[in-house]
Amino acid sequence: MSSKLLAVLLLSLPFSVTATTDPLKAPAKPKNIVIMVGDGMGPAYTSAYRYFKDNPDTEEIEQTVFDRLLAGMASTYPARVSGYVTDSAAAATALATGHKTYNGAISVDVNKSPLPTLFEQARDVGLATGIAVSSQINHATPAAFLSHNESRKNYEEIAHAYLESDAQVLLGGGQRYFDEALLAQFTARGYTHLTDIQALSTVQSGKVLGLFAEVQLPWVIDNPGLNQLSTLTTKALELLSQHDKGFVLLVEGSLIDWAGHDNDIVTAMGEMDEFARAIEVVEEFVRSRGDTLMVVTADHNTGGLSLGAEGQYEWNAALLRGITASPESMSSRIIGSEDWQAQLQTNLGFELSEDELDSLTKARPQGQGVLADAIKKIIDTRSFTGWTSGGHTALDVQVFAQGPASGLFIGQQDNTEIAQKLMSLLPKPKKAEIAPTAPSVTLPPAPASQETISESTVQSEGEAESSESVADENEASGAPLSPELNESSK
Amino acid sequence: MSSKLLAVLLLSLPFSVTATTDPLKAPAKPKNIVIMVGDGMGPAYTSAYRYFKDNPDTEEIEQTVFDRLLAGMASTYPARVSGYVTDSAAAATALATGHKTYNGAISVDVNKSPLPTLFEQARDVGLATGIAVSSQINHATPAAFLSHNESRKNYEEIAHAYLESDAQVLLGGGQRYFDEALLAQFTARGYTHLTDIQALSTVQSGKVLGLFAEVQLPWVIDNPGLNQLSTLTTKALELLSQHDKGFVLLVEGSLIDWAGHDNDIVTAMGEMDEFARAIEVVEEFVRSRGDTLMVVTADHNTGGLSLGAEGQYEWNAALLRGITASPESMSSRIIGSEDWQAQLQTNLGFELSEDELDSLTKARPQGQGVLADAIKKIIDTRSFTGWTSGGHTALDVQVFAQGPASGLFIGQQDNTEIAQKLMSLLPKPKKAEIAPTAPSVTLPPAPASQETISESTVQSEGEAESSESVADENEASGAPLSPELNESSK
Repeated sequence: MSSKLLAVLLLSLPFSVTATTDPLKAPAKPKNIVIMVGDGMGPAYTSAYRYFKDNPDTEEIEQTVFDRLLAGMASTYPARVSGYVTDSAAAATALATGHKTYNGAISVDVNKSPLPTLFEQARDVGLATGIAVSSQINHATPAAFLSHNESRKNYEEIAHAYLESDAQVLLGGGQRYFDEALLAQFTARGYTHLTDIQALSTVQSGKVLGLFAEVQLPWVIDNPGLNQLSTLTTKALELLSQHDKGFVLLVEGSLIDWAGHDNDIVTAMGEMDEFARAIEVVEEFVRSRGDTLMVVTADHNTGGLSLGAEGQYEWNAALLRGITASPESMSSRIIGSEDWQAQLQTNLGFELSEDELDSLTKARPQGQGVLADAIKKIIDTRSFTGWTSGGHTALDVQVFAQGPASGLFIGQQDNTEIAQKLMSLLPKPKKAEIAPTAPSVTLPPAPASQETISESTVQSEGEAESSESVADENEASGAPLSPELNESSK
Repeated sequence: MSSKLLAVLLLSLPFSVTATTDPLKAPAKPKNIVIMVGDGMGPAYTSAYRYFKDNPDTEEIEQTVFDRLLAGMASTYPARVSGYVTDSAAAATALATGHKTYNGAISVDVNKSPLPTLFEQARDVGLATGIAVSSQINHATPAAFLSHNESRKNYEEIAHAYLESDAQVLLGGGQRYFDEALLAQFTARGYTHLTDIQALSTVQSGKVLGLFAEVQLPWVIDNPGLNQLSTLTTKALELLSQHDKGFVLLVEGSLIDWAGHDNDIVTAMGEMDEFARAIEVVEEFVRSRGDTLMVVTADHNTGGLSLGAEGQYEWNAALLRGITASPESMSSRIIGSEDWQAQLQTNLGFELSEDELDSLTKARPQGQGVLADAIKKIIDTRSFTGWTSGGHTALDVQVFAQGPASGLFIGQQDNTEIAQKLMSLLPKPKKAEIAPTAPSVTLPPAPASQETISESTVQSEGEAESSESVADENEASGAPLSPELNESSK
């Protein structure tokens, strides 16, 4: 065999050759990286989504974008101090920095020292960065990519820290965390500030801070066809791809997790569809260009979701397909309505039994939350959907990848390795560019609150579970976010 | 670069290069195939096993064999007539034949016509075949590889059909299904019949029918160090590798599923360890030889297991590591004992609270099953283990692979594709060898029972759930197997 033929063979090897130390076998490096996180999207969510989207009129079960892109799986455990079950902050820190930390930490280690992030390293070698999320933009996952803080709960500090991030694109919800003074600082630094998603189409270049909801974006099931995350993702790609040196973009389907915390399968499937559409936007970008790597994963599994429950060998996706509103919005609408039974049955798409009507009649006087829970229970029972928790579980999550170097993500890996692999794909800094890295890794400019950092707030294993479960339940369904949650889901 | 260097580089490429249509890039074909099924082993079981095996005295969390070998995932849904949740029979048929069928079917299609199996195709081109399982050898999974039947419940017909299978190695449990007359037919066909696992070491060659338990092998947690599945696997490899043309071996960790049906995390972890050890036996064989492909998967997920429950961000693996007996054997021992509290606490490894003792005191007079359930509830509550079902769920399962052509199993696939890929790796039949294939695909020689086949027994979606859930619960914990289950677990 000639050396020419062999060289051609070597060059024609697919990108997905497994990683080795031999440079000749190393995959091509991407110019751009898009990391996408389905918050709480454990493997039961992607299986469920396949059956939810199945066309029952065909013999086969149609593939989803997740089926097309699966590469491997990832473990998600936090630093040992927090046990085996991660929260979104420790998991986001792993994905943003390549390091384990305690639950609640935003890109700081177990000693609360800041950890260099993928975004900082990208910025230091001239790449543009950005985020497009469906939560408030200063929620745990984007926060770990854009800031450092001892606690995810310090929303105001995190919002202020974004001023220093130099991110080109900040798109999502969270108006309540950005007051006029802070917004003025962003505009002084060249950001176009928007609150109307329609106006996004007028932004053709430059930095943008788009806050399109008081807290998180509205539930998709209550706003069919709105697909805001796809809109934000499309615009983020458009703006970031103007940067000659390339970019790193984080997209998060944030609210899958929130629906999971609520044990709300109908709303979860709507948010899965929203995230899948955003993935398809990126998939199309990746396929059309050839210079962009996309990696999709989840930060953890939420709710202990199962398809099939109580000994029944069935998951009734057809019933779920027929439901046209979230239990939250259904309960909100009917709690004060005389004609509640007819309204509810129209939204549910099935006739309620006497027992079911009885359970709802008893729930109504107890308030909207109890009524929503009663509606969810009927849906779960009829669809054979199971849940074990209002919190997270330690189940591994999937990793999906496409584009140059996507082969690096095949097989089993830890969530920290995802960040390490992505960092290894960034251009190497020139000598003159190395200096800025160190100063860029600083805690946010909020000296007063920094003084409150103490060792006692590093959680022990036992403390982590209780305090973080409360924190996460709050983010999903409790105070202080519930007014906005209710507002946004109408 | 010299052509010699390039040739070395090409030869050193890992097996896991993804499959392409270019023959020069196609993976080498294996001489031998080992397919291993962890019955019911959804991804929560492999995550749980990692944390169960974690050494808490080290900072890192140690990898398991599953972490080393992960290649992809597989969907498990049965034919549309049975909905989205498979039973073991339809899943085993998918893995053995590459076709979807109804729940309960043993390598027959939805019209009850026999489907050609991997084992038949292997036999027809001269390969030896065999099984090593921890259930009765005529249970659903091995049955689909070795026979055809309209129902997994026809245990006697399936046992008789094995006479025609020409399998070299049949190792597992199931003495009750093989009477003297049937055993005589096996010995007449050259099989060495054994019931004592110690005697297996005396078998050096030839066909072997080893039935080492009345029904299934005993729970591993109640017999530490016994590791019978590893012993059976080692012997199967030794005997089958004497065949010059190669072999196909099925190994099943059958009882993971049974523990899952029982919602028994302690026993499930014991059976996971047993299966992992058997995988390591095969892994060592694969690594030392280079001519053998191993593919490990699960047929479905059982029980809706979650690591973390009731809103708690914790899974207490340490508590589980300290428990030294199955709840079944604990309850059996203490039900008639005066000194039951001390005995139980010794096995559990922790001190019971007043409330826990109270729950057990109330459960004892209600019989062993209720007492075992009360013990399991204490373990689940303390370890934050969740379950949603005594049956199966539709969650995708993992696929693990190593050896020549293992790259074929990377990414997402359907369970039928696993069989199709394995079949594609068999040697092509010579013209003279094609003839036998058709006659070999016949229903078992039990004419009386064949007459009972009628269309009405093809289950509709609704019927499938109820009837199959009963069937599967019987296999795990109910009549008629419970006497042997109790017997075997002591």
